[in-house]
Amino acid sequence: MSLLVVGSVAFDSVETPFGKCERMLGGSASHFSISASFFSHVSIVGVVGGDFGEAEQRVFESHSIGTQDLERIEAGKTFRWRGRYDYDLNVAHTLETQLNVFADFKPKLSAESKASRLVFLGNIQPDLQREVREQIPKAELVALDTMNLWIETARESLLRTIRGVDLVIINDAEARQLTNIPNLIKAARTILSWGPKALIIKRGEYGAALFTPDNYFAIPAYPLESVFDPTGAGDTFAGGFMGYLSSQEKTDEETMRRAMIFGSVMASFNVEKFGTERVRRLTYAEINERFRAFKRMTNFEEIPFERAVEAAK
Amino acid sequence: MSLLVVGSVAFDSVETPFGKCERMLGGSASHFSISASFFSHVSIVGVVGGDFGEAEQRVFESHSIGTQDLERIEAGKTFRWRGRYDYDLNVAHTLETQLNVFADFKPKLSAESKASRLVFLGNIQPDLQREVREQIPKAELVALDTMNLWIETARESLLRTIRGVDLVIINDAEARQLTNIPNLIKAARTILSWGPKALIIKRGEYGAALFTPDNYFAIPAYPLESVFDPTGAGDTFAGGFMGYLSSQEKTDEETMRRAMIFGSVMASFNVEKFGTERVRRLTYAEINERFRAFKRMTNFEEIPFERAVEAAK
Repeated sequence: MSLLVVGSVAFDSVETPFGKCERMLGGSASHFSISASFFSHVSIVGVVGGDFGEAEQRVFESHSIGTQDLERIEAGKTFRWRGRYDYDLNVAHTLETQLNVFADFKPKLSAESKASRLVFLGNIQPDLQREVREQIPKAELVALDTMNLWIETARESLLRTIRGVDLVIINDAEARQLTNIPNLIKAARTILSWGPKALIIKRGEYGAALFTPDNYFAIPAYPLESVFDPTGAGDTFAGGFMGYLSSQEKTDEETMRRAMIFGSVMASFNVEKFGTERVRRLTYAEINERFRAFKRMTNFEEIPFERAVEAAK
Repeated sequence: MSLLVVGSVAFDSVETPFGKCERMLGGSASHFSISASFFSHVSIVGVVGGDFGEAEQRVFESHSIGTQDLERIEAGKTFRWRGRYDYDLNVAHTLETQLNVFADFKPKLSAESKASRLVFLGNIQPDLQREVREQIPKAELVALDTMNLWIETARESLLRTIRGVDLVIINDAEARQLTNIPNLIKAARTILSWGPKALIIKRGEYGAALFTPDNYFAIPAYPLESVFDPTGAGDTFAGGFMGYLSSQEKTDEETMRRAMIFGSVMASFNVEKFGTERVRRLTYAEINERFRAFKRMTNFEEIPFERAVEAAK
């Protein structure tokens, strides 16, 4: 088993200016694992209630997603989130959160999960993230996501957790809030100084950037004329990124750069329909076609200014 | 003569969280022409007052900038702008605007100017932009910048002017305001449908994008740990872009892509110091070094996902 994700499996109800959808499969682990499954075998550590039905289970099965460590509490109810987006689709307004079975979630890892090569600590309480991380000491690469809630309410624990991971994947507002530094480049350097070998900053419609101690890599987002539902885009990005890495022998910078593109490709599909609808019906041809589009939309010939070269002589 | 700019020549007073500077050379035509002068010969159409001194004149001379059509009204005062930036350096707060000699500005073009190959209509009243444009009917490429003021107060005139140019260079907020369309990609398609063959949307710290009817090209901004004074960054970008185009035989898409990089390179230097201080002291080696950095920070290998290729067979 190569890739493990710990995170939420949820029922989401979402309202956007373009429509609404009730009780659809959501949560960070769901979006992540469906996206990653196109590249690699992936398993979920999480918890659901007795209301988690066959239809949802079938989505995981049809993508060969491992659910051995997806605990089921028959007497409980699955985590629920209800949110609304206005015309600024960058901002999610949470209308309701029911933690349900997630309130007492204690991640339990099978021996197989403990042998994972790559791990994604989805956006959950940082103590829980650390508990999982410490059970997989030999993982080659551990990545972490977080959110404003934990930056505000569990800052010290979050910093401890960040010091123990290899890669942090957050958005620009979170990077600024985490460091109290308005300049994104300085904020990124600060986060890297805490220990992680790499940092990915997601910038929504503006794309994403990869920071390593010696390099900077930035890509635009895929240009979409309509964004239908942005819920899960960040986890879908992380799923594409980690799934691709997991499919490759090396996790070096060159591989991470391509993984950034595959992450962006998957996220661009995710926002085209509600929930996981679009991603779970993707074909490999569609994925590779959009990957090639990224090359076309970022490529330029490296020809330094000629007169400049002459003048500099 | 190859490149012409019409726009403001001003004295700027700027306050940022990092310092303040009084009465420095500014205005769209100044920033544009100093930046462009590194790539091509450039001439200014504009107006200054009797207070425009030898020191300022020398800046233009030392960059071989043509000032034949820079009218001087001895009895008048040069255009003045006073502004402040808070920690969000993306937003300029205008404290004072004195139009002075600019209030009655009527652009007068010499025969030489009328033979310009490329023209940049800097951010001035759209009727004036159109007057200039109509005097250079044979120009190979005419570009236009504008601002929220003209979108609000002279919309019909601005739309007429846009229909008569080849390239529009604006920022993302202006593109949305101009079209009343929140989605930037849709907004861009709409502007292109009005006539221009190309559109550049500047996104500040997030970079810039080039839209043509068939293609999309996007680049990040150069990653700066400190932005000192963003005044004139947009005009400095346009100057690098148009200056590079002017130095090349073709103005096709491939050339425009490299021009986008040179524009971004020049803008990244501009914000490092007050006003035009940094750009006017640039060396060709510095420009080409930063150009190469753009290639490093956007480059990835085009290797579609292998299992995907196999699965698609």
